[in-house]
Amino acid sequence: MSVIYDRVALIGLGLIAGSMSLAMRRRGLAGEVTGYARSQTTRDTARRIGLVDRVCDSAAEAVEGADLVVLCVPVGAMEAVAGEIAPHLKPGCTLSDVGSVKRAVIDAVGPHVPAGVDFIPAHPLAGTEHSGPESGFATLFENRWCLLVPEGDVRPEALDRLRALWEGMGAHVDTMEPDHHDLVLAVTSHAPHLIAYTMVGVADDLRRVTDSEVIKYSAAGFRDFTRIAASDPTMWRDVFLSNKDATLEILGRFTEELFALQRAIRIGDGDHLFDYFTRTRAIRRGIIEAGQDTDAPDFGRVKPAE
Amino acid sequence: MSVIYDRVALIGLGLIAGSMSLAMRRRGLAGEVTGYARSQTTRDTARRIGLVDRVCDSAAEAVEGADLVVLCVPVGAMEAVAGEIAPHLKPGCTLSDVGSVKRAVIDAVGPHVPAGVDFIPAHPLAGTEHSGPESGFATLFENRWCLLVPEGDVRPEALDRLRALWEGMGAHVDTMEPDHHDLVLAVTSHAPHLIAYTMVGVADDLRRVTDSEVIKYSAAGFRDFTRIAASDPTMWRDVFLSNKDATLEILGRFTEELFALQRAIRIGDGDHLFDYFTRTRAIRRGIIEAGQDTDAPDFGRVKPAE
Ligand SMILES: NC(=O)c1ccc[n+]([C@@H]2O[C@H](COP(=O)([O-])OP(=O)(O)OC[C@H]3O[C@@H](n4cnc5c(N)ncnc54)[C@H](OP(=O)(O)O)[C@@H]3O)[C@@H](O)[C@H]2O)c1
Ligand SMILES: NC(=O)c1ccc[n+]([C@@H]2O[C@H](COP(=O)([O-])OP(=O)(O)OC[C@H]3O[C@@H](n4cnc5c(N)ncnc54)[C@H](OP(=O)(O)O)[C@@H]3O)[C@@H](O)[C@H]2O)c1
Repeated sequence: MSVIYDRVALIGLGLIAGSMSLAMRRRGLAGEVTGYARSQTTRDTARRIGLVDRVCDSAAEAVEGADLVVLCVPVGAMEAVAGEIAPHLKPGCTLSDVGSVKRAVIDAVGPHVPAGVDFIPAHPLAGTEHSGPESGFATLFENRWCLLVPEGDVRPEALDRLRALWEGMGAHVDTMEPDHHDLVLAVTSHAPHLIAYTMVGVADDLRRVTDSEVIKYSAAGFRDFTRIAASDPTMWRDVFLSNKDATLEILGRFTEELFALQRAIRIGDGDHLFDYFTRTRAIRRGIIEAGQDTDAPDFGRVKPAE
Repeated sequence: MSVIYDRVALIGLGLIAGSMSLAMRRRGLAGEVTGYARSQTTRDTARRIGLVDRVCDSAAEAVEGADLVVLCVPVGAMEAVAGEIAPHLKPGCTLSDVGSVKRAVIDAVGPHVPAGVDFIPAHPLAGTEHSGPESGFATLFENRWCLLVPEGDVRPEALDRLRALWEGMGAHVDTMEPDHHDLVLAVTSHAPHLIAYTMVGVADDLRRVTDSEVIKYSAAGFRDFTRIAASDPTMWRDVFLSNKDATLEILGRFTEELFALQRAIRIGDGDHLFDYFTRTRAIRRGIIEAGQDTDAPDFGRVKPAE
């Protein structure tokens, strides 16, 4: 593929930034990729493994002359980073981010965007439970969605170019309104994560009762929750604090339904349970048909070595 | 390996029975495996794919002369099946089951067990979201636990033999008290399944609001819930109805913790969230170290074809 941006700057060098750099490099989408992370440790690691073409010692230096700047830090850190780099942005460049919440990022970053810079918030719906500069991989975005959430005046050619970059990295691209984005993600990601964290926390409390049996016999169901609940605490704290309303709304509905099912168990209403469990099967089918998951049993999960 | 039982009868021919037959056959653990399922369709399929050595047209015929009989039907069907086969059991044989709940199975099946038959309830902690006669595979139990829950008088040599069979199929074997089993499984399996079913149900309700976006953009977290919530409705209805107390107890604790976290989100208590999310990471680490899951990102999940 051909170069889409001559120079791309990534602020934050974790899972998402690392995967972007590796994907852009593999597909030849950027002339040069610069990067910056706040800690010396992360910068050293990034240098050692050659994660980007050039690791800089300040955010200002990294964004100098960049045609595209992508903020790849936790949502709660976006505002400070935006303030820091704003004076150094090249006129006519595009500023984007990869935060998991969009309304809060727009409110935090928007006011810092200089005139003549196109601000196009984005969210790749791809990730793993791992984080840090060594967790990225070039295929992370392949066959996944990336949602672009442009607000206000954005030049169409800037939007087309960012779209081309994400498509170049293997993603499907859609645009969406920020509030709608935050609601959809509250359902598909934020509420499920909080629920998984909660269930794993309950199991942890019970460890005294069950010794280490909860871990030892974790095969069914719970194991999958622990993977989700192993995700980065900072990232998720910020997600919940910045997508408060939609998350609480979905959790409210969740609790209502859970109470109805608990009641069905208590009074022995097997038909209610059976019907509910039959309905939820159809959703899985839809996801597999939409190409967003595998039908292989247990995800075709790799068996751990004995 | 050498033959452990000359003749094994499997009642019910779904995921677990099928996997047992294929595993016993691959390892040469049984002289002959007979099988029976209530529907003609399942029996025909089992015959067509050669799932067991001999598919019988009645449960009585299948258990005739068997040294080991394993009930592989939903928990709520165990009592009727036990009543049907009891008069036909060979004196001195072992009767077992694979039900996901143990106290209820003991109460339902126990009274039907003839004198001279060793009744050893069991539960292999292995499964997938698929079911039916074509879903089994020989490696399902490898490196997984199988819990034996003997109650009352069981001859030690009968217990040793059943243990040898499960070990022969690749499982690790432990014994456990039935009530304790039901509590541990409520934490690791039953409550997580109900929670996953609930969250997927909520998403289904919201489909009108979000069009089909919940399915389309299901990448993170939710996808894993839908896999769990695609499990067999009959099996799970029976599990909840027959492990009522422990499941409701764990769900009660879950709701309490969830409320505390919701409150932290509402009042913006980031420290509470951060600490909670940090604690749950350790559990994942424990499970990976115990060899019960892979550390590969996203389970090393197979990517669906485009
Ligand atoms: N992980 C996912 O599944 C996923 C998916 C889609 C979108 N996202 C979003 O992508 C963004 C990055 O996530 P990630 O998974 O790549 O995270 P990560 O691997 O934990 O990396 C985060 C990076 O941000 C830096 N950082 C953390 N706190 C900071 C602060 N207060 N100020 C400045 N820099 C800070 C870190 O620097 P140090 O290393 O120096 O500490 C690190 O380089 C987040 O907004 C997240 O919501 C994540
Ligand atoms: N799936 C798991 O993850 C898992 C894991 C561990 C233990 N278990 C336990 O293993 C047992 C079997 O589960 P499975 O996953 O193998 O189920 P499955 O694939 O759905 O197969 C169930 C079998 O039971 C028969 N059956 C269903 N209802 C019956 C009834 N009322 N009377 C007589 N037979 C009936 C079915 O016959 P037809 O085909 O003719 O309808 C089928 O052959 C259950 O007790 C379950 O709790 C399951």
